[in-house]
Parts: sequence; C-alpha cells; structure tokens
Amino acid sequence: MDIKEIKDPSFIKKLNKKELVELAKDIRSFLIDSVSKTGGHLSSNLGVVELTIALHYCFDAPKDRILFDVGHQSYVHKILTGRAGSFDSLRQFGGISGFQRRNESEYDCFEAGHSSTALSSALGMAIARDLNKDDYYVVPVVGDGALSSGLSLEALNQIGDLKSKMIIVFNDNNMSISRNVGALTKAFSSLRSAKSYVELKDNVKDYLITKKHGSEYIQTVKNLKNSIKSKIIKSGIFDEFNIDYLGPVDGHDIDALIKAFNAAREKDEPVVVHVITKKGKGYKYSEEDTCGKWHGVGKFNVENGEFLSRTPDNYKSYSRIVADRLAVLMEENQDIVAITPAMISGSALNNVFAGYPERSFDCGIAEDHALAFASGLALNGKRPFVSVYSSFLQRAYDQLNHDICRMDLPVVIGIDRASIVGEDGSSHQGVFDIGFLRPLPHMIICEGKDSCEIENLLELGFKTASPYALRYPRGSIEYKEFKREEIKVGTWEKLVNNDNEKAVIISYGNDVLKIRDDILNNDLPYDLINARFIKPIDEQMLLETAERGRPLFVYTNDMIKGGLGDSILECLNAHHITVPVYILGIDDVYVRHGEVSLVKESLNLDLKYLYKVIEENA
Amino acid sequence: MDIKEIKDPSFIKKLNKKELVELAKDIRSFLIDSVSKTGGHLSSNLGVVELTIALHYCFDAPKDRILFDVGHQSYVHKILTGRAGSFDSLRQFGGISGFQRRNESEYDCFEAGHSSTALSSALGMAIARDLNKDDYYVVPVVGDGALSSGLSLEALNQIGDLKSKMIIVFNDNNMSISRNVGALTKAFSSLRSAKSYVELKDNVKDYLITKKHGSEYIQTVKNLKNSIKSKIIKSGIFDEFNIDYLGPVDGHDIDALIKAFNAAREKDEPVVVHVITKKGKGYKYSEEDTCGKWHGVGKFNVENGEFLSRTPDNYKSYSRIVADRLAVLMEENQDIVAITPAMISGSALNNVFAGYPERSFDCGIAEDHALAFASGLALNGKRPFVSVYSSFLQRAYDQLNHDICRMDLPVVIGIDRASIVGEDGSSHQGVFDIGFLRPLPHMIICEGKDSCEIENLLELGFKTASPYALRYPRGSIEYKEFKREEIKVGTWEKLVNNDNEKAVIISYGNDVLKIRDDILNNDLPYDLINARFIKPIDEQMLLETAERGRPLFVYTNDMIKGGLGDSILECLNAHHITVPVYILGIDDVYVRHGEVSLVKESLNLDLKYLYKVIEENA
Repeated sequence: MDIKEIKDPSFIKKLNKKELVELAKDIRSFLIDSVSKTGGHLSSNLGVVELTIALHYCFDAPKDRILFDVGHQSYVHKILTGRAGSFDSLRQFGGISGFQRRNESEYDCFEAGHSSTALSSALGMAIARDLNKDDYYVVPVVGDGALSSGLSLEALNQIGDLKSKMIIVFNDNNMSISRNVGALTKAFSSLRSAKSYVELKDNVKDYLITKKHGSEYIQTVKNLKNSIKSKIIKSGIFDEFNIDYLGPVDGHDIDALIKAFNAAREKDEPVVVHVITKKGKGYKYSEEDTCGKWHGVGKFNVENGEFLSRTPDNYKSYSRIVADRLAVLMEENQDIVAITPAMISGSALNNVFAGYPERSFDCGIAEDHALAFASGLALNGKRPFVSVYSSFLQRAYDQLNHDICRMDLPVVIGIDRASIVGEDGSSHQGVFDIGFLRPLPHMIICEGKDSCEIENLLELGFKTASPYALRYPRGSIEYKEFKREEIKVGTWEKLVNNDNEKAVIISYGNDVLKIRDDILNNDLPYDLINARFIKPIDEQMLLETAERGRPLFVYTNDMIKGGLGDSILECLNAHHITVPVYILGIDDVYVRHGEVSLVKESLNLDLKYLYKVIEENA
Repeated sequence: MDIKEIKDPSFIKKLNKKELVELAKDIRSFLIDSVSKTGGHLSSNLGVVELTIALHYCFDAPKDRILFDVGHQSYVHKILTGRAGSFDSLRQFGGISGFQRRNESEYDCFEAGHSSTALSSALGMAIARDLNKDDYYVVPVVGDGALSSGLSLEALNQIGDLKSKMIIVFNDNNMSISRNVGALTKAFSSLRSAKSYVELKDNVKDYLITKKHGSEYIQTVKNLKNSIKSKIIKSGIFDEFNIDYLGPVDGHDIDALIKAFNAAREKDEPVVVHVITKKGKGYKYSEEDTCGKWHGVGKFNVENGEFLSRTPDNYKSYSRIVADRLAVLMEENQDIVAITPAMISGSALNNVFAGYPERSFDCGIAEDHALAFASGLALNGKRPFVSVYSSFLQRAYDQLNHDICRMDLPVVIGIDRASIVGEDGSSHQGVFDIGFLRPLPHMIICEGKDSCEIENLLELGFKTASPYALRYPRGSIEYKEFKREEIKVGTWEKLVNNDNEKAVIISYGNDVLKIRDDILNNDLPYDLINARFIKPIDEQMLLETAERGRPLFVYTNDMIKGGLGDSILECLNAHHITVPVYILGIDDVYVRHGEVSLVKESLNLDLKYLYKVIEENA
C-alpha cells in the first residue's frame, strides 16, 4: 500500500493476517528508503515494525495511551498515525521530530528523549485514569537497556505496589545502543529462553483473532486467563517486583503479538509482555550490526549500506579527539580509569575499551551510578574519566554535587554533545550544564577552541586535584597535530588583541576560531578573548580588559541564565566596574531540532547577528 | 567501661562474647544519654550497636573500608573510633558531624548524607583495590529503604556483573525514616522470614570465634564455605543481580553477626549479608515508634521520652503550614494529588495522607521517579504537588528539566528545607536549588515571607499552568490566620518604601520580615523589597527602583552564583542601568553544620553584617 496515504491507525483493525504482514513489509521498505535520505534512528525502528502494528491493532489510540520510552523508536507509530508524508522533513528544522512530540499529533501522549522515564510517567497516567474513573489502557514500551536503569526499577517498585492496570511492553533486543551490560542482562537472558509462551500459543490456537467478536469470546478469554495464570513461569526480576509476566513472544510474529496483547488486555493489574525483537530487522547491514553503527545514522546508500557524508580525512570528531588523547594518557598513567554510561560508541571509546579493558567500565544507562562509582575510585586514589553527554549528565547532578564536588574529588568529566546539538532536538540540547555546574564549589569548567587545546585541557584535567569538566560539542573539526602547551587553570587567551579596537568579543569553544577568522579576514575592529575556562574565569584579564572601557560582547551557544555572562557580570559588579556588556545566548527557551546553523539563526545566535549587534552598539 | 576512653577499635578484638555484649549495653546508654543532650539521629544508631561492634571486630579499619550509607547511623562507628569524647559537640558548629566525614577521622573513608550512594562508591573502591592489587575488604552498610532506590539497584547491577570482592551489609529494619513502601519491601519480607541461616548456625556451632587462630581454622572455613554454598536459599532479588546472599542474621546477636561476617570474608566475590535489626532498639520510646518521630530528635528527657524544646503554641513549622493549606486545597480541588519521596513525616504530610489516601503517594527514596510520576499525572490532567527537600530535589534535576519544564507541565513542587538548614550540614544545605532551577524555561520559583504569603503562594501554584516551585526553609514561624490575597506571578512587594532613603534591600523569605522590623524599630534609612518571586523577577519594580540611583543590597542565604543577584544583574545590564549592586550570599563554598545563626555569622550572612555593608557603601 502507499504508506503516505495512511491517515490514522483505524484501517489496521480491518486487515487480515496476510495484509498485516504485507503492511509490515511496506513500512520497512519505506523506513529504509526514507531514513537513507534524511538520516535518523534506523535499527530500533526496524526492530519494532510488527510490534507497533500489533499495538495499534489491539489498542485504540489516542484513547489508549501508547508511550515509547526514549521515543527514537516511534517512527512506525508516526507512520501509522498519519505522518509518513512528513518523513522527508524528519529531524529537520521545521520538520517532524525524531521523537514523540505532543504538538505533532494527538497520538503522542508523551514526550521523551532520555531513556527510562516511560514507566514512571505511565504510572502517573494510570493513576490519573483510576482517579478519574476512566477506562483505557496505558501501554509503555520499554527496551531492555532502559529497563535496567534505576529510574525504571524505581517505577517497577511502585507499579508492583499500587497494582494499577498497565500493560508494560518489554521490547527486548538484548541491546541498548550497543551491547547491554550488567547482571540483569543475564536475568533477562534466562527469561528469554523460557518456553512457557510457546505452550500457551498451542493451547489457545488462533482463538483471539478469529473469534474476537463472537459469542464464544468471553468464555475463551476466561479460559485463557486461567491458562495464562497457570502457565506463567517464575518470571524472575518481575516476580520480585510483584508484577505479572507474559512471554516471551516473537516480536516479528504479528499473530503472536496480537494474541499476547489481547491476553494482557484482560488483566486488571500490571502485566509485562516480554517481546523479543531483533534490532535492525529486515535490512542486511543493520541486522549484522553489533556495535551501534546503525542505531543513529546519516544519509546512506540503501544498496550497499555505505554512508554518504564522510568526514574529511583531516577531520576528527570531538569525541574521538578526546578519546584518542585519553588512550595516550592511560598508557602513561596507570591510575586513569575510563567510564561511560552506555555510550562506548557515541563517545568514541571503542579503542580505549579495547586497549585498556581492565580500566574501562560501561555502567549501562545509569549516569548517577557512573558518577558515584567514579567518586569511589577517586576516594581510593584513582583518576577517573567519565565521558557523558551534556543532556544525560543532568541525571547525575546530585552525584556531581554531593559525591564529587562536596568532597573536592579529582574526577575528570568529558561533557560530550555540549551546547546546541542539532537534529535530536530539545531533549538532547547540551545547553544547561554550565548553569548547573557553575554554582558547585570546587568545580572547574573548560572548553577548548581546537583539537590541540582540547587535548591540552584534557591533560591538564589529570594534573588538577579538583572536579574538572571539559566540554566539547557534537560534530567534527580539523585535526591539528598535538603540541603540548602549558595552560594554567582559569586562564583565558587573547586571540585578537589590538587594545584600541572598539569592541571586545568574549567567547569559548570552536566559535572563537570562526570569529577570529572573520575579524582577520574582514578587518573587523574587534578584539577577541578565548574564555576557555568558564569557571574559574580569568578575573585579571577580564578586569584589565574592562577597565579600558570598550563594550564587551559575550557570545555563547548556551543558556544565558547561569552562563558565562553571569560570571562576567558578577565579577565586574563586585569590582564596581561599569562597562557595557552584551550577552548573546539562549534566552530562557527550549531549543528545537534541526540543523545547527538553522537553529542558531532562529535563535539570533549566528555570527552575522553577533556582528550586527556589535555594529549597532559599539 | 568508660566509652570516652576508647581511642580506636583495636581493643574490641580482645573482648570475649560477654564483654562484647557489655560494650553494646554501655554504648547504648551513652548514645541515649548523649543524644538526649544534643539532639541527633537516635533510632537508626540504637539499631546498629551490635552490628557496628561486630564489623569492627571482624574487619580492620581503616585498612578495610567501612562505608555507612547516608551516614546518620555512624555514631557507634564514631564512638568505636575514638570520638565519644566529642559527642557533646555533635552536629554543633565547630563540633563533630552527624555523618561520616573524612576530615574527622581516618576511619571515615567515605562521606554521604543522601541515601543510596554507598554501593556505587564501594564498587569504585573495590575496583581501585583490585587495580592496585591491594588486599582489603570493602564493606558498605546499606539500609532496606536505601536499597530499593534506583541508584542502589544500578550499583547492584554492576556489582553482580564485575564480581569484585565486596561484603554488602544489608541492614534491614523494615523502615526507612518511617515505614517502607514499594513492591521490593515484600520481596525483602520473604527473605527475612527464611530459615536457612538458622540451620547454618547449628552446623558450624561456635567454631569461628573460638578457633579463629587455631590450626583447625582453615579446614573449618573450607567446610563452612561448602556448607554455606549448599545452604544459600533462593535469595530473591539478589539472585537476579547475580550476587550471593547470606542470611538472615539477627542483628542484635553479636555472636551470630561475627560468624556471618567471618563467613562472608571467605568469599572472593560480592556477597550480601542480610542483617535484621530493630530501629530504636533498647530504648522504650524509640522502640515503639513507627512513624519516624525518634529518627532525628531534638533534646529530650531520657526518663519520660518527652522532647524538651517545644514550638510555641502560635508557631507552626513551614512544612506544616504548607501541608495544612494543601489539605484544604485538596478538599476543594479533586485533581490535586500529593506526592512525597519517603518524607511523609518530615514534610508534615501525615494528615494529608490520612485524609486523602487515594490521592497521596509515597514513592520511596526515589526523587527522580517521584517527579517523572508527577509528569505522567500532569499529562493526564491532574495537578500534582510534590513535597521534597531542596537537597534531595537534586536527585530529580533531569526530570524537572526533561519531563516537566520541557513540556511546561503544571507541577507544583514544595521545596522544603530550602537555604541554610543548620545541624545536618553540607550534604543537606538547600542552597543550590535556585541555581539549578533558574535556567530552566517555564520554571517559576517563589518564596513567602510569612505563613499567610506562603499559603497564598501555594494557592497560586495550583492556578498556574506552568512548573511552580515554592521554597520554604526548615523550622517554624509564628502562624498568622490565613487571609486570601491576590498575588500575581512575578510580582514583588515594597515592604518599606520611602523612596528617598539611601539604600534599597532586596531579599526573600522570612528574613525580609526581620529586616523590616530592624528598619522600623531602629529608624534605618533603607527601603525594602520582598522579592517573593525569584523567577520571574519583577522587572518593572526593579527597574523603577534602580532608576532612582540608590545602591541595591541583595541579601540571600543561597549560593551567589546562579542566584537572585544574577537575575538582577542580568536585568539591569540588559536595560543598561548602572547602579551599585551588592550581593550577599554564599560565595562558592560548601556550608558546614551547626546552628543556623552561627553558620550565617561564619559566612558573613547575619543581618548585622548586612547593615555594616550598607553603612560602609551606601
């Protein structure tokens, strides 16, 4: 069928088994073709094609609430709810989001982007339903990686206690972005190999679909319920949480899925439906992927699986620049330990983990534990390095404060995906970390302008006896050969310094090089300071500069509130220096998705706008 | 024995069974007597007297690392490590802390204050030991309440995976501060009633203590290991995490404890020793407590269990002011739902939970889940109120950002114990919340000056369609009869307004009333603004005031960085208004424990200092 013709999921309920299988095939082709042209999350969506069809077959969205944990696997849901026609704008500025978004469709009852929130939110929805004496299903869809995070386990703990009706779809592909870790992985494995559901299928052969509206239905369901009760095996971890379990079910057998969901519908309390799916199913290249290469992709050639946009040879991703230097430092210093919360591939740590397996730790999707674990290592004399995306570091704020800064422990934090990230959108923007880190005593925050400075700042981190956060953005830059440079904590750098110019720009990160080039190439009458330390700031350089009276233009791609601008205002105010200060940054709004340059333009954060502001005010 | 004569725990190893029991009795008397004079955590310490003696009997601290999760139950440890002589200064300014503190003793290898960090940190310590090829024991002591929080479960997940040697003491009193909640509570219950360890005791009768250094020891231990292996029952939740289990052990039988710990010592991988203790053991009044009244206490009369310091009749705690008004609002508005993360008693919500049980939810020690749960309720049309201590809200930063503010959901957050808290010290100071909340778009932050304004601000919260944080401190104030008042979001209040005075003080919270009284009583030439909204600020009033040119003195008891002062500087700067601004607050340091007035004096934050600064600069 023409996938783009789908208006809403009501048509699915009229399809027979063969047609449902055809639909799955068509959706899969559409997904591969569409994502190959826009980029996006491929593998996780290919894995849930049949699952999502069966969900919309068995449940009545939007009345029933279907919540996709994280939401990057909601593409099939988007297609079935009438958004296939917008897939050419997927993740693009002004286009549809790569996650569930309430303003996009009434079928999106939930929004996420970070893992493991769906169960807690689903419990809130179920309790609200019960209090309102409404009657509908709440159906969170949660992956096995997300299910082993603490937040999910806390939710299970209350779900099993409150016993509000809920159907938890446990989408088990034995992966998070890449391989799962942790003891629970083994617990899930033993469930996966259980045989109970296979027997169940034989018992109720084909009843539910064919007789759904017949008079025999009710009695069949009653029999089924008893049958299920007796067949439910020792369900391991879910048993401990006092939650019923149904499964495992083959996640690519629509028929089996429909039977399982219909059985689950009959339960008046929470039940887990354990669905085994294969990440990347139906596309040769993604099916064979074990390291997460096909989890989130750029544009690619469908025929040969080759990615179209290649980084130039002299370019390196920020993550790799840091990881490669880390590997060198780990060779030199046996005390350095590398930690990631389930982001080996995203943080480019594959070589570090391969080279130093005994000193490399993947903590799973558990940022809070990763940082508390680092505190223990530091308390016993080790030098932990934790690589974590800015937006995911939000999960570990208390550990940064209570367990690291409060004890002034030497933990180096690589804050990846800092500032504006682009296509992933509001949940992934790395624009808050300065705001929450800057008020923490002992915390040092820095960002380098180029590969060489980043590497030097990383080295400095391991020579520093305090918590040390090195920020770097998403993307790649030209790699310059490493030259060791002595940098002192808290020092800025005058990049353009004529002292008689009419304005001073203060910025950090790779933008300062672009600004420098603009100044030099266009003979702009501005001085430029590389504020590579966001905390502590270089008070001496700031005060000396300010005393000359020229207006200061603080240019950042992070939140204005709590940012470098505030530090500068605090310092000038404390020293009673009044000089015009213009602060450019994100002004108290969430930043939407799209190509970084377009997003920046929409926020009045492109460099053209900076120069305009200077010209108007300097 | 004279408890104050204890220098270090080495003497314990020479005591026989009878002497150990005597020691426990003496320590218990000392604890009750000492805490009755200083206040402090009583029940949890009375519960671990024998446990702590047995730990120091079996392990060699400080070489072996004993970590008390939270740490409020470390008093016996402090006594045994030579600090009984300082107990008259417990929790007082300049005195010993109520928690483990590294700068206090080499026996304190770990610091906490917030629950559930010990397992993660212990794993870090154990891995560091392994990497260093050192050989010692790492012994985290974790309560059952803490063990059901997500952070602990994440740690177990990795502990069971990495298999580094560790002895996890599961101190199970079936309580956190008050009763435990959640499905895992039932799972722990079924473990508690198991019989396996009783059998074990019979098998190895008295061997370990009496023959510890004899030649038969090694063979005995080998036999014991096999015996344990075969006796370990299906250990429920720990089994799922792939961690061995030993227990349950009577936590008040020193002999049994020593046997269990010595058995655990022989294992080369992580093992849980399940110890059943009774909170408040050995003191009539605390033994009978089920609601947490004797968890943390003020001074009391040992004989009759009466608390000495009583709140005057016309005084009410801030928590109770909020809770009582909440109860009224819940009566009027069926959509309001009350949520607490394990703080029913501390947040004075007992009446709310009793009056509206179907709309009241205790999420356990799981602040992140509590806020994500609230987001689900709000997504389905409910008006959740979450009461949470400022320092514990740190655990839910990501949910505030990603799940609440990003979707602009109407969740009212009661931030209890805001600003400086006093005796609990650095881990409990509520001085960071403004810093981490202010940069969040949509977030409203307010604080009332007296009971009436607090109640009105709470009412306003439920009329407001955005995330709304109402801060209030620890302690009590005079209760004034409620009078409804229309307050608009973002409006400040001129409390003293002569317009021709030489300085303007801007502050929030109860301090503004004290300042007003000082101004009026002493004819001080200052104007005063009640900045009851910390976000959004009242730009109009600020700008009008600033335009008059008088210096502004911003007085807060929170971190300067990220605080109200920054908001004021941002606003004045954006409007190109230059007026002297003096910001008083906490200047990038952690705040230690002690009576609030002494702590404030030490930080130059008492009002006398404020007036001095004004006189010197206005």
